[in-house]
Amino acid sequence: MVNVRSASFTVRGTIQQLRNIVLGNPLPSSVSLEHRLPIILALPVFASDALSSVAYATQEILLQFKETPTSPINPIALSYLIGISLAIAILIVIVATSYRQAIHLYPSGGGSYSVSRDNLGVLPGLVAAASLFVDYVLTVAVSVSSGVENLVAFFKSLQGTVHVSSMTISIPVLLSVALILVIMLINLRGTKESGWLFALPAYTFVLMLTLALGMAFYRMLTHSWVPIDAGQVAETTTHTLKAISLIVILRAFSSGCSALTGVEAVSNGISAFEPPEAKNASKTLLVLMILLLVMFLGLAFATTLFHILPTEGETVISMVARESFGSSQIGTFLSLLMTFATLAILMIAANTSFAGFPRLLAIVAKDGYSAKSFANLGERLVHNQGIFVLTGLSMMLIIMFHAKTNALIPLYAVGVFICFTLSQFGMAKKASKSKGKGWQRTFALNLFGAVITGIVAVVQAYSKFHEGAWMVVVLLPLLVLFCYTIHRHYTWFDKTMTILPSDYNPLSIPPDPILVLVLVSSDIHRGTLEGLDCARNLVSGRKDSELRAVHIEVDPEKTVRLRTKWSQLVEPYLGYHIKLDVVSSPYRLITEPILEFLDQSDLTHPNTRIIIILPEFETGSFVTQFLHNFTAHRLRKMLMDRPNITIVSSRYFMRPKAWREGRGGLTY
Amino acid sequence: MVNVRSASFTVRGTIQQLRNIVLGNPLPSSVSLEHRLPIILALPVFASDALSSVAYATQEILLQFKETPTSPINPIALSYLIGISLAIAILIVIVATSYRQAIHLYPSGGGSYSVSRDNLGVLPGLVAAASLFVDYVLTVAVSVSSGVENLVAFFKSLQGTVHVSSMTISIPVLLSVALILVIMLINLRGTKESGWLFALPAYTFVLMLTLALGMAFYRMLTHSWVPIDAGQVAETTTHTLKAISLIVILRAFSSGCSALTGVEAVSNGISAFEPPEAKNASKTLLVLMILLLVMFLGLAFATTLFHILPTEGETVISMVARESFGSSQIGTFLSLLMTFATLAILMIAANTSFAGFPRLLAIVAKDGYSAKSFANLGERLVHNQGIFVLTGLSMMLIIMFHAKTNALIPLYAVGVFICFTLSQFGMAKKASKSKGKGWQRTFALNLFGAVITGIVAVVQAYSKFHEGAWMVVVLLPLLVLFCYTIHRHYTWFDKTMTILPSDYNPLSIPPDPILVLVLVSSDIHRGTLEGLDCARNLVSGRKDSELRAVHIEVDPEKTVRLRTKWSQLVEPYLGYHIKLDVVSSPYRLITEPILEFLDQSDLTHPNTRIIIILPEFETGSFVTQFLHNFTAHRLRKMLMDRPNITIVSSRYFMRPKAWREGRGGLTY
Repeated sequence: MVNVRSASFTVRGTIQQLRNIVLGNPLPSSVSLEHRLPIILALPVFASDALSSVAYATQEILLQFKETPTSPINPIALSYLIGISLAIAILIVIVATSYRQAIHLYPSGGGSYSVSRDNLGVLPGLVAAASLFVDYVLTVAVSVSSGVENLVAFFKSLQGTVHVSSMTISIPVLLSVALILVIMLINLRGTKESGWLFALPAYTFVLMLTLALGMAFYRMLTHSWVPIDAGQVAETTTHTLKAISLIVILRAFSSGCSALTGVEAVSNGISAFEPPEAKNASKTLLVLMILLLVMFLGLAFATTLFHILPTEGETVISMVARESFGSSQIGTFLSLLMTFATLAILMIAANTSFAGFPRLLAIVAKDGYSAKSFANLGERLVHNQGIFVLTGLSMMLIIMFHAKTNALIPLYAVGVFICFTLSQFGMAKKASKSKGKGWQRTFALNLFGAVITGIVAVVQAYSKFHEGAWMVVVLLPLLVLFCYTIHRHYTWFDKTMTILPSDYNPLSIPPDPILVLVLVSSDIHRGTLEGLDCARNLVSGRKDSELRAVHIEVDPEKTVRLRTKWSQLVEPYLGYHIKLDVVSSPYRLITEPILEFLDQSDLTHPNTRIIIILPEFETGSFVTQFLHNFTAHRLRKMLMDRPNITIVSSRYFMRPKAWREGRGGLTY
Repeated sequence: MVNVRSASFTVRGTIQQLRNIVLGNPLPSSVSLEHRLPIILALPVFASDALSSVAYATQEILLQFKETPTSPINPIALSYLIGISLAIAILIVIVATSYRQAIHLYPSGGGSYSVSRDNLGVLPGLVAAASLFVDYVLTVAVSVSSGVENLVAFFKSLQGTVHVSSMTISIPVLLSVALILVIMLINLRGTKESGWLFALPAYTFVLMLTLALGMAFYRMLTHSWVPIDAGQVAETTTHTLKAISLIVILRAFSSGCSALTGVEAVSNGISAFEPPEAKNASKTLLVLMILLLVMFLGLAFATTLFHILPTEGETVISMVARESFGSSQIGTFLSLLMTFATLAILMIAANTSFAGFPRLLAIVAKDGYSAKSFANLGERLVHNQGIFVLTGLSMMLIIMFHAKTNALIPLYAVGVFICFTLSQFGMAKKASKSKGKGWQRTFALNLFGAVITGIVAVVQAYSKFHEGAWMVVVLLPLLVLFCYTIHRHYTWFDKTMTILPSDYNPLSIPPDPILVLVLVSSDIHRGTLEGLDCARNLVSGRKDSELRAVHIEVDPEKTVRLRTKWSQLVEPYLGYHIKLDVVSSPYRLITEPILEFLDQSDLTHPNTRIIIILPEFETGSFVTQFLHNFTAHRLRKMLMDRPNITIVSSRYFMRPKAWREGRGGLTY
């Protein structure tokens, strides 16, 4: 294996070594089964997106009770919190149950896309896929920026900006971008690696939040809670309580529904589980659902108990931890731990997208609805290209929205709920078709779920339309159209490229005569000789061949010198006469005169295969290489667009020794 | 000529047509003499940089009398203005005279670079060239932003910003960038074109400023001036007059020296003049010098007379015009005309750089100190590449400095004065060497000029060091080093690539045997057949040849299908057996296994010329092309770095008809 890696330049070798250190040595395809996930590692990878929603869903509900974007939250919000949270909890149970059924029916993965495509048709399938793509990108952006928000709430010095020349960059944006890059690198190392790395913080988060909520219960039962901020309760009571409109409650419900996101992730990545895949995935989803319910409802309860209203720069979860653990030394330590665990779980939530997005893209690619190379596995058995796309898009979002979670949430939920709706409709249709044992129950549950999530999708699209949900509404049809266009192209490609019996019948026709053209610049040097030598080799021994050299004359003075050199240097060394055609280029162009010259050649040799040799040279240095071969590169590009031409790139190596020496590790 | 242009795709044809409309039809090399400039057109092209300096030099002198960057200008500035301006006027006469001598001695152009290189050595020559490069880029930035400043002074609504997403872009910056692009396009059309287009506004500026200064004289002589702004005179007298330090006067003098910039431009572009070139260029410079003296001194006088102190948002020249022409209807009209003429001359000043920079870069390129392609003439007989570089760099500066002229001035003058100093030292040395008739006078004048401009350069570098002149001080050595590095590479290149008698002796050795390898992907389609056909053709009739197909196995399942297709589809059509090597790639890499495979081939065929055929296909559509040929492109890049391999790119055209039809205008 070392030999495989070292067969390249020294510089490239060093880069490769560095890469191996960062990403790990390449993995052979044969070990792919060993890199499947057991439940204990699958939970942090696939479920933590849903779990982490807990870290911001409650806060997002409360933030909808602001009267203006700058005013504080109306304290009446707290009296609605438990109710809204319960409604969302019911939705969680319905959606999770539906997906557990889907896992058993579609054990090869693809989740909502596969369910919708199979039962509702290609269009709904692609809508579900597109929604998921949007969702996954937003998950990374929302999770990371939310994680950074938590961090900033603790280390207040991280608020602020950095000035680079005339640009002002906020520190949270910088931190978010850095985090995404780290997550990208870990995922390029492999899925199992990310499972191991994130298992500890994920379980720590679950433990810490359970502990905090347990403490809250204990304090309620023992009446031992003393508000840390004395103004908190007083303020709550003195604030004028205005009537809350239905639209505010609906918006709060919509925002809180972000707690559901990530529930679908398990169903997309079933193939990453240890066998029996479907059973393990289903178990994981059950555990996830229970954890989700306990933590989401518990947090709503604690928030209400402690009269917590999030402020600019401090999140609900860190305030709950502070109140639960108290201000003693050990309490402060536990609060700190909670903050770090929250940051960690939010990072792993982004990791879920990195596990899901590339796999879904690969499944769609295999069906021919996205570029086929997305299905390729990289050196570490992950879909590298999908990972890069996800990284690029989510960083773009973070930068565009200045790493403000709240600004991203409106974009978020519409896509997820469209995907929930389609998936559940698909499941309902499948149940009604199959008429299997107990199909009525499955049908009813999924139909009910589909209708509710459908309503939520519409409410979200409507109530958050002006805040940014319109972008999703515009983006989805474009994405779907894009998928269709790609598929149409692949269909046409397969049709056009299929070999037909009429294509070739070589026994009846002899090979075409060949015309080898060497393009010669006004300078004659060793590179020219190398090209001519190659040409001489190609025509050697063939009677139906011709070798000609062509020079495009830009400066007639140089042509005179060229002709002299040609007869003095080139022909003596090659040993025989080669005709040098000089094509005048009054407009100082290179490619056009060659194309004209070729058209004339076409005339005289109707069936001739024209081989054009472009002599290049390799300076052996990355820095100086850019000073040469410009014309050859441009010519290759231009001539490649022309049918019936074969282009030969011959290279003269100015430092062949240096190249050889760079290959130290070779076996011969 | 139409035929030459149409030999390409339809899309490319349309772009070419659009290009011809914007830039004009390509010009043949034979008409280059017809595109030389007569004096009447050369003046607006080459001299307007110097003339336009008048539009800001006076203002820059006055601005140095601010006590803090935000305070108003100390009115005592006006009592120093005439004195400082006279000192600068003397410098103008000395420098212009020196350059007129240089023009006669170096009639092929290159100005300060040629003079310094020839008389002082390569290093001083490159320092002069680097200074000029910096100068030309700054001239574009300073002139355009100054022109826009004038415009904004008139149309106050243009102050302000435009918001795009989270970015804030000031309107002056946008206008400046747009202006630079327009000037670039005009210059890509050709030098004479820009001469014609800018002759009218240039002469209008000279006329209008002369008229304004004439009016000012008239008003002084007839005592008919009534201040338009009543507070102006009063304020001047009540302001406390603080002592002005010598450093302020030196800085004012340095800033005012920007009036000298552009004096060297004529000497760089002598080859653009009509014959007799040197005589015409010298005449032009004389006219320029006289105009410069009259206008610069006249403006200083008028400013003093009218007690004008420039304010934020209004320039000296527009204030002088207002006072001279009065507030009557015709006066307002003339003021407006003056403003537009000022804007125009500032734009043409940038145009001078576009005429000078690419020509100088070409001269340096011919000597091998910059990339040789800078010497190429484009389709309209101008050095396109130099024009693009100048456009890019000046736009970068404008954006970095937010189009504030004053922020750019400190960067400006150091380079120009280094170049003046070197040029005059060179001239002095040449005079002392030649000992021709009256050499003592030439020697004395140039030495005196060199010393004075040298002192100015040092003063400027010192006094404006912290404001930005340090950048020039850092930049110049880097640029010079860069030029040397390029030259060293070209020298090495020529040495390495020169053909030696020992290189080739083909009469004694027969052509090497060839091994043709066709790389086959897991899909077998028409593109594969095309590649195999090409290979079959290359080996046809040669006994010392071998043809093999190689497949890199990433997915063993696909290999099974490939082998079936190979025996069922490929071999029947080709008519004979071709060995298909399957190289297993456990790490799913493509290039590395091929390199390993080739190393083995190296072993078995020590002298064999290895020809690798990469089958590609052309979808005929720019949009879908990106879905294919990724691997072929990457392979070509990787394999090209390896000596002793010849790469053949064979292309299957999926839409050959569409290609043919796009070539409507062809003659056959």
